[in-house]
Amino acid sequence: MSPTTLSTDPQKPEALRKQLQEQYDTFKARGRSLDLTRGKPCPEQLDLAMGMLSCVNVDHYKTRNGTDCRNYGGLDGIAEAKALMADFLEVAPDEVIIGGNSSLNLMYDTILRAMVKGVGEQAPPWASLSPVTFLCPSPGYDRHFHICQNLGIRMIPIEMGPDGPDMDSIEARVADDESIKGIWCVPRYSNPTGAVYSHETVLRLASMPAKARDFRIFWDNAYAHHHLVEDPRPLANILNACKQAGHPERVYLFGSTSKISFAGAGMAAMAASRKNIAFVKKEMSFQSIGPDKLNQLRHVLFFKDMEGIRRHMQKHAEILKPKFDAVERVLADRLAGKQIATWSRPHGGYFVNFDAPDGCARKIVKSAADAGVKLTPAGATYPYGQDPRDRNIRIAPTFATVAEIEPAMELLAICTRLIALEEAEKRR
Amino acid sequence: MSPTTLSTDPQKPEALRKQLQEQYDTFKARGRSLDLTRGKPCPEQLDLAMGMLSCVNVDHYKTRNGTDCRNYGGLDGIAEAKALMADFLEVAPDEVIIGGNSSLNLMYDTILRAMVKGVGEQAPPWASLSPVTFLCPSPGYDRHFHICQNLGIRMIPIEMGPDGPDMDSIEARVADDESIKGIWCVPRYSNPTGAVYSHETVLRLASMPAKARDFRIFWDNAYAHHHLVEDPRPLANILNACKQAGHPERVYLFGSTSKISFAGAGMAAMAASRKNIAFVKKEMSFQSIGPDKLNQLRHVLFFKDMEGIRRHMQKHAEILKPKFDAVERVLADRLAGKQIATWSRPHGGYFVNFDAPDGCARKIVKSAADAGVKLTPAGATYPYGQDPRDRNIRIAPTFATVAEIEPAMELLAICTRLIALEEAEKRR
Repeated sequence: MSPTTLSTDPQKPEALRKQLQEQYDTFKARGRSLDLTRGKPCPEQLDLAMGMLSCVNVDHYKTRNGTDCRNYGGLDGIAEAKALMADFLEVAPDEVIIGGNSSLNLMYDTILRAMVKGVGEQAPPWASLSPVTFLCPSPGYDRHFHICQNLGIRMIPIEMGPDGPDMDSIEARVADDESIKGIWCVPRYSNPTGAVYSHETVLRLASMPAKARDFRIFWDNAYAHHHLVEDPRPLANILNACKQAGHPERVYLFGSTSKISFAGAGMAAMAASRKNIAFVKKEMSFQSIGPDKLNQLRHVLFFKDMEGIRRHMQKHAEILKPKFDAVERVLADRLAGKQIATWSRPHGGYFVNFDAPDGCARKIVKSAADAGVKLTPAGATYPYGQDPRDRNIRIAPTFATVAEIEPAMELLAICTRLIALEEAEKRR
Repeated sequence: MSPTTLSTDPQKPEALRKQLQEQYDTFKARGRSLDLTRGKPCPEQLDLAMGMLSCVNVDHYKTRNGTDCRNYGGLDGIAEAKALMADFLEVAPDEVIIGGNSSLNLMYDTILRAMVKGVGEQAPPWASLSPVTFLCPSPGYDRHFHICQNLGIRMIPIEMGPDGPDMDSIEARVADDESIKGIWCVPRYSNPTGAVYSHETVLRLASMPAKARDFRIFWDNAYAHHHLVEDPRPLANILNACKQAGHPERVYLFGSTSKISFAGAGMAAMAASRKNIAFVKKEMSFQSIGPDKLNQLRHVLFFKDMEGIRRHMQKHAEILKPKFDAVERVLADRLAGKQIATWSRPHGGYFVNFDAPDGCARKIVKSAADAGVKLTPAGATYPYGQDPRDRNIRIAPTFATVAEIEPAMELLAICTRLIALEEAEKRR
């Protein structure tokens, strides 16, 4: 993730350009159609959880305390699911609310609720203020940014580094600007950079003074247990840190089993201080009688506990690691030492972060698409879809096969070299 | 549902009061604990759908067009589920959005979205207006009223009759008051009166002039297919009626299989004009990647089509009819001809509506609770929990057994006679 500069290959530019153009044309002529846009699990990962479809049945549809999961009730989830997701998010069971199948839905609802009702503690509805501002570590997750854009929340990009977002910038802004009500964080294997927030980053987020009393951290721990290495970098406990810093209400945590069990039929959860949870539960009681308890029961019967989830995720890693290795192998083979691109070697999560020379990302993505390889639209990883340096490209290798990833990365390398060369020529 | 007046039993008041008090004391001394508050299916009804737990399995997890229901995608539902719920709600498949397990959630989200974003067509966010008013046919469903109260929406009760709400009152108000943005309707087997909206009521709702261009009917067809009789009273198609009256955007329809398959794990849907659906889908695309498709697939594989649902609901009726008969039998035996109470004989749905003498409902419910029979809190069926005549009591006989319903109704009759007598004495 070090800054990249426009640079040329050692070969003579014109000969190189011709050679790369030939490679590009050859690739294009094969008429392939490859898709590396999708941050979703592959069928082999989903196959690992098929036991979940049969563990709730005519003999097993009640909780330990006798609750019939088929019937109404249980606004915040069955006790077993709350215990599991409490371990998952490293909080206490009464600091957890179980949602439906989507943590994004819990995040959206939390913000929409804040717009209309505030976040408790007599804080005013955010919609009554103008502007409402969120800090957006970038590159980041496009769906986070889309929620803000959809609701008219102003976004300020914050530069991401290997230890998390630029804390100096965050601290200065949050201390000074009462309109800043939130910050988006994907603290582990950040989408797309793969960064894990350092201990210091977590502590600074928890302890920094905030001008807005109702400032909230949206802690989307989407890849909390999605490691590709044996010794993952530890992540400090944000809720504990907030409590210790005297800001127990500052953070909402989110997580789900979407990329653990079934992406379309997982179990989402949010966590926060008991005071926050009480407020959210009260408001949720008007929205729903409660989420699908049978699906919660499927999860607890199948995974049993966090040890079960960890074992399961090792099997995911066995499937995913060769895919990430394929990305690294081809990119290193084709681009290493050329000083035109940098990319991440993530220890987990779902993405490889690719930085091309400034001003080249859109052209590279378009050029790859023209030759049959779909990449996430350039800019998508920034607020308003605008990458100020137009260099960032998100690579999503989980759904594709190695046989698809290799040629796709070959093409990405070709396009990157070609566009970088053309841009360098233009500026000469 | 004809008005009731305070009247005394033919017996001498003092002797009667003593006798009723003895009956009450005897009942109370038995220390029973009966609950008739819950509008939820009984275990025998849920048992009928157990096949749904095994029909999605290692061999069946894809849609007809090959979509893997385990993975992400499908914001508005799989095609098969949309087709089924389109038949269910009597609309076209592209007028349907499949939700999660709760139609209440779809209703709440629709209103919260309207508060922040309006309802499309450049209409302003409702939260920017003051007041926002909903018409509330009453007695009605407490959770509808709670949504309004929670969001600061002013409620105006409208008297319910056997053909639906008082249309003269509705037409006059809606034509005159731009703040009226919505009306709650449970058009078939209204909760709790059991009324079915007449053809004329539906047409008048669809065609009446509305001062607010963004006036919306919230058509909660919760009991659309929940008949207790062979020849149910027909219900006119509200979406067609709105289209024909030149108000295609006026209505949102809601329904679910909560009281068909599993109350906690059903499939909800909403329907509306294509223009409304396009607006809702666009907004929903920021909220979620899509609801649980495996559960949708369970429903379509298990029920197959509306004929399957109809056959299934006949089995529900076989379980429920003896319970409603028990209510009628005891109430008729103990209260008929005494001119102190009226009650409904519903042709479907989940409730019996009981009207005691004015000013007696709260005392009756409290008195029953003191002797071990829980009834829905008096007033719950009215906006703000305030029954202006304090006479309406909702009886929910579906979850209880006949052996529980009979004594509970005995006690209700005793309490009603006793309180009515005491109140009559007081006013003498």
